Amino acid sequence: MSIIVQKFGGTSVADSVKIKNVANAVIREYKDGHHVVVVVSAMGHTTDYLVKLAQEISLKPNHREMDMLLSTGEQVTIALLAMAIQEAGVPAVSMNAAQVGIFTESVHTKARIVDIKTDKLHKNLNEGKIIVVAGFQGITKDGEITTLGRGGSDTSAVALAAALKADRCDIYTDVDGVYTTDPRIVPRARKLNEISYMEMLELARVGANVLHPRSVETAKQFNVPMRVRSSFKHDDLGTLVIGVDSMEIYRPVSGVAADLTQVRVAILKVPDAPGTAAKVFTTMANHSISVDMIIQSYAKEDNTNDIAFTVSESDFDQTLKILEQVRKDINASEIQIDKDIAKISIVGAGMIDRPGIAADMFSSLADSGINIKMISTSEIKISCLVKKEDAHNAVKAIHTKFNLDEKTETQVAV
Amino acid sequence: MSIIVQKFGGTSVADSVKIKNVANAVIREYKDGHHVVVVVSAMGHTTDYLVKLAQEISLKPNHREMDMLLSTGEQVTIALLAMAIQEAGVPAVSMNAAQVGIFTESVHTKARIVDIKTDKLHKNLNEGKIIVVAGFQGITKDGEITTLGRGGSDTSAVALAAALKADRCDIYTDVDGVYTTDPRIVPRARKLNEISYMEMLELARVGANVLHPRSVETAKQFNVPMRVRSSFKHDDLGTLVIGVDSMEIYRPVSGVAADLTQVRVAILKVPDAPGTAAKVFTTMANHSISVDMIIQSYAKEDNTNDIAFTVSESDFDQTLKILEQVRKDINASEIQIDKDIAKISIVGAGMIDRPGIAADMFSSLADSGINIKMISTSEIKISCLVKKEDAHNAVKAIHTKFNLDEKTETQVAV
Repeated sequence: MSIIVQKFGGTSVADSVKIKNVANAVIREYKDGHHVVVVVSAMGHTTDYLVKLAQEISLKPNHREMDMLLSTGEQVTIALLAMAIQEAGVPAVSMNAAQVGIFTESVHTKARIVDIKTDKLHKNLNEGKIIVVAGFQGITKDGEITTLGRGGSDTSAVALAAALKADRCDIYTDVDGVYTTDPRIVPRARKLNEISYMEMLELARVGANVLHPRSVETAKQFNVPMRVRSSFKHDDLGTLVIGVDSMEIYRPVSGVAADLTQVRVAILKVPDAPGTAAKVFTTMANHSISVDMIIQSYAKEDNTNDIAFTVSESDFDQTLKILEQVRKDINASEIQIDKDIAKISIVGAGMIDRPGIAADMFSSLADSGINIKMISTSEIKISCLVKKEDAHNAVKAIHTKFNLDEKTETQVAV
Repeated sequence: MSIIVQKFGGTSVADSVKIKNVANAVIREYKDGHHVVVVVSAMGHTTDYLVKLAQEISLKPNHREMDMLLSTGEQVTIALLAMAIQEAGVPAVSMNAAQVGIFTESVHTKARIVDIKTDKLHKNLNEGKIIVVAGFQGITKDGEITTLGRGGSDTSAVALAAALKADRCDIYTDVDGVYTTDPRIVPRARKLNEISYMEMLELARVGANVLHPRSVETAKQFNVPMRVRSSFKHDDLGTLVIGVDSMEIYRPVSGVAADLTQVRVAILKVPDAPGTAAKVFTTMANHSISVDMIIQSYAKEDNTNDIAFTVSESDFDQTLKILEQVRKDINASEIQIDKDIAKISIVGAGMIDRPGIAADMFSSLADSGINIKMISTSEIKISCLVKKEDAHNAVKAIHTKFNLDEKTETQVAV
């Protein structure tokens, strides 16, 4: 019998009426003849409420105690959802992470899952029960309660699907799938029926907030088919996230995204000596600052380089402080800042085999009179920095250039 | 080093300010050089809120899932209290029942504790930490979450004190101790410095709501000294509940209580045959109805008995339904009801050795012109039913008769 893992987020279980709706969605899958494991988050604003309580007591609450506190949110939801399923006449049982045996590293507030026990899960599934599992939480081998950090519940669901060798992991959200770009910017954005793990990852990294990269990485690692689908439209199959080799359609470009939350930082005239770039980025990493779009120019005549990269606005102040010290240490001349940037990216697994994709992107921007400030490329992604005011026009121009505007799938896959 | 177990109820931890106050009370004991284990309930109205959520989903929610749901309440409190203690610079760690190893029977919503592991507790105490334990909850050997039912957190505290061989178990409440009677009825009611387990039990059963009988029974069984004291008055030592042989002062009567929530039920002309009384009370027990003050008259000339007893008002409707069937089965003539009753009780471990206590009680009622409807006695308790309107006067008269009005202790212990 096939196993389906379903995941519902906080807004889908925000009150008792919504929990009953989720129960119906779960039971529908069960009555279609599947074993069902459902993973849920804390109800609506529960986590915010608990965080507020903690902050009334301590501005810097102990991480272990935060996990003890926050993990209660999911435990409330699993009990209520199990009751709602039972109330509809279907056997169900709730399990928290300790009861399942979702083992993580001994790290609080952002632990990674290292092992999931499946014996109790299989036992309950074989008894005909729907199992409701608390997302976001784990337990260490010493019995300490941990939480998984951002994207935690999605990751719980995918990891459970991997451990159970489930046929599919359905992530229910408030959107009905993954789009070629943000439909609020480009009304003709098209929902994708399929997308590869790698494309999804790159899209997530450039600002498409549908799935947390961590859950996609886990799905990719264990080859778990994920489906992003709407909590509200039962008939809509959403978007299937799978491996490239399983994809039916193979597009050069799957999506366009704009990220307006980055700041460009450049360190000018860095002496061209071994270890200088390492020094810069190791220092940043030691302060847990993520860096994107690193570019280093060829050494100039004076034997110096310019190193440029982007960081998130929220890390900007700390970045400046750190870099000023680093600049002195490596004897660079100046730090240059550009806040007026938007990162426009195209993502597509088909890009690898097709020359000219980058050229097409750049020319579509040029045709719209948009100046490119910086470029960086990976195997399946090309990103350009443009002015913030050009972001929307850039996305629209590229979207049209790559035939992503709404049509039938086959017409696009030329 | 001595071990003190402290317990704080829901009203003492109702918000972050109160939690900080509790932290201070805990730290005070710690700085006096004790190992401290503190047991807490869910914050204020949390449990009511969770019950309401469950009832929105199911009118008769599954008991296992109710335990899963309600046990989150205490887990929130332990995390917050541990944070508050840490914030004050003292090492603390929270532990839920699963982490401590508070094992119960496999019964939901009213499990009894069967074993408590102490290794993790001793380890943390020896590391100089204050341990904050979730009250009211337990775990079965299969890892199922249970709750202990009414009086659960008090019972958790006493059971932990017993397992740890603690020097004392302090139950912090909103009253400052155990009184000779309800101070709202008799302003001259006196706080007792000491009371025996048995007296406390009998007082609890007749309507003094300071401690749940279950926790007192546990304390008696393991000889754990309990102290009932105020969350608000640090200098007040409250009332010590101990074994009779540890008591310094030995009074014939320790307290007077009135219970206005009972209804008297009589079954008239029950044929005097073996098994009829058993039939009546087994049927009541099967419907989980507690019966108090059972009286059976001697058989009359027509070989019938009258059987009378009291039940709680809340069980009254169900009692009538059940009894009407029983009455037919045992061929009794009639069921008689009296709702206009108050049960007045005196309790005292010294009663056993002293003749005339019952006579003194009855005569004090007679002197006040109060008619007695029914009498029942145990070794250390005498209860009389009187009219509801006579309840306050009865308590006052008896209180004065037994020299319980406020004076010094020595004057009373004549």
